[in-house]
Amino acid sequence: MKLRIVVTLKNGVLDPQGKAIQHALGSLGFDGVSDVRAGKIFELTVADGTSDEAIDEMCHKLLANTVIENYRVERI
Amino acid sequence: MKLRIVVTLKNGVLDPQGKAIQHALGSLGFDGVSDVRAGKIFELTVADGTSDEAIDEMCHKLLANTVIENYRVERI
Repeated sequence: MKLRIVVTLKNGVLDPQGKAIQHALGSLGFDGVSDVRAGKIFELTVADGTSDEAIDEMCHKLLANTVIENYRVERI
Repeated sequence: MKLRIVVTLKNGVLDPQGKAIQHALGSLGFDGVSDVRAGKIFELTVADGTSDEAIDEMCHKLLANTVIENYRVERI
């Protein structure tokens, strides 16, 4: 079973990587980029029948820092 | 206009970060994780009417290293 886990910073959390990318795009001549937020994506191959609880636990324990990050799980 | 740009390593390119995550999940007791690939996601807010060509150029020039990475653009 394939999973895609998308981890993004919560709203209100400063994102210096995103800001740096936004400025770099401006320097390269791309105007009109008003915001950039950077995040992470993990594509996992797990055993069929892995429970939603186990997947949530993986995210909480390792993949996401839930103090500052949101995550969402997509089955693919 | 909001865009989501997902950058992932091409098949066949070694992914040490993914391997480290896979091993860490195993150490934490999550069995059955047979593969992990790590990637990046960028959420951009761009001016309405930004052309597909401009978006592709942003990806080629800055956001993705197209020698080793694939990218895809989703409009949200």
